[in-house]
Amino acid sequence: MADSEAYAKHPRSTVNRYGKPRGRYDYQTIHSVVNTVPVFHVSFPTPDEDDPFPAMIPMLGFMGDFSAPGSDDLARPLDLYLHGYISSRLMKLGGTGDGVHEGLPLTIAATHLDGLVLALTPNHHSYNYRSAILHGFGTAVTDADEKMWALEKITNAVVTDRWQNTRLPPTKAEMISTQVIKVSVVSASAKIRAGMPGDDRNDMKNDELRAKTWIGVVPTWTQYGQPIASPENRVKEVPAHVRDFVKAVNEREEGTAKDAALQ
Amino acid sequence: MADSEAYAKHPRSTVNRYGKPRGRYDYQTIHSVVNTVPVFHVSFPTPDEDDPFPAMIPMLGFMGDFSAPGSDDLARPLDLYLHGYISSRLMKLGGTGDGVHEGLPLTIAATHLDGLVLALTPNHHSYNYRSAILHGFGTAVTDADEKMWALEKITNAVVTDRWQNTRLPPTKAEMISTQVIKVSVVSASAKIRAGMPGDDRNDMKNDELRAKTWIGVVPTWTQYGQPIASPENRVKEVPAHVRDFVKAVNEREEGTAKDAALQ
Repeated sequence: MADSEAYAKHPRSTVNRYGKPRGRYDYQTIHSVVNTVPVFHVSFPTPDEDDPFPAMIPMLGFMGDFSAPGSDDLARPLDLYLHGYISSRLMKLGGTGDGVHEGLPLTIAATHLDGLVLALTPNHHSYNYRSAILHGFGTAVTDADEKMWALEKITNAVVTDRWQNTRLPPTKAEMISTQVIKVSVVSASAKIRAGMPGDDRNDMKNDELRAKTWIGVVPTWTQYGQPIASPENRVKEVPAHVRDFVKAVNEREEGTAKDAALQ
Repeated sequence: MADSEAYAKHPRSTVNRYGKPRGRYDYQTIHSVVNTVPVFHVSFPTPDEDDPFPAMIPMLGFMGDFSAPGSDDLARPLDLYLHGYISSRLMKLGGTGDGVHEGLPLTIAATHLDGLVLALTPNHHSYNYRSAILHGFGTAVTDADEKMWALEKITNAVVTDRWQNTRLPPTKAEMISTQVIKVSVVSASAKIRAGMPGDDRNDMKNDELRAKTWIGVVPTWTQYGQPIASPENRVKEVPAHVRDFVKAVNEREEGTAKDAALQ
């Protein structure tokens, strides 16, 4: 990924880790992780100074560029768009900024679990994973065209082509009740662990231990099952856009997990 | 779950949501979510006052009670034990507390994605999920027995019975290099969405729309694949504790996702 442009390193986003370097800063890697995770966690400081705990909520979203709406190029600067049930706290804060910053400071974490790494010792047990942490300032999207574009992208991030297979356009009431937050990302990093367990030399020389201790990787991924129709559904067959999506995402995720094990 | 004891409601942990009430505060529900999620995200305020972004890292862990080490009862107060690569920032802060609080204020988010909810309109698309958010003060575990107990529970949370199928006990060097954080939970809530899409009455009366728009749920879960042996592995067969775990967790997760769709 050296040929992709990257986020500038910042102390808060620098990945420190003994052994293999696992930090990645290039746009392509970070944006790919975010755009393939179905749900992530968003954290932000609480407005109540007496409350020491950051707020956290699960949300969904995608990274894109409204100034180049048709582009799927992930290897360049993009904004993060968030959607979900937006707490009144978040909306209040995210609407116009806090006076100091342009928007609400948000930290976003997106993690794929790719496998369980089983070693000779508990200490060397690990996970294969792809994780991205992003920091940026969030503001509510008020431009009608940008909001519609973001809602289309978010719906199609859940199931490819779903937007155009539903009742369109959204009503005025729906557009008012739905909020989208745009995050201008200021720093970000990804961390990736792949491959087999790495045990200490002493344990690897212990023939008795190795004769009885299985080592390897259990690949894991998010599996999409057979679609289950609602009792209210009137369409006989599961439509192609749903079937194709389920097949494609299962192949992609299972393949990624197995490839990670074998790296 | 009304017969289980519960976390006291606090403004920070009160789940507000239009429509169906989705918040849950009972110990059993919250602790079950945490103890079945393979990885969660931990957020904490940064020590640098000029840095507005909460820190966030993926970690693993479990909820348990060292004063009742053999108990598996989740319907009572438990502590959260965290493990993973612990950044120097977190360890520095979590070691002894910040002088005001007994430990570092941590927010922990654990989310299961159970399904994609496909409705007639983009607006009613949703996820089935089980999510828990916990707030508590984290300190490093220094008691040797408690630390050993926590490492055994954490290893067995990755794969049931894995601990006793590895080289034991950990060496002194391993115990020193490994840190466990105990979180005394002060507030927590879970949020659960299950079932089929709920569309607006106007759309449900639109026969043309319903004739062409499939509605229902795509169940999703974390799938554990066939274990892949390391090139360094010398054990011929995948051992029973790994095989049994993969089978059990797949049945549990797939079953939960399908049950959620049909609720």
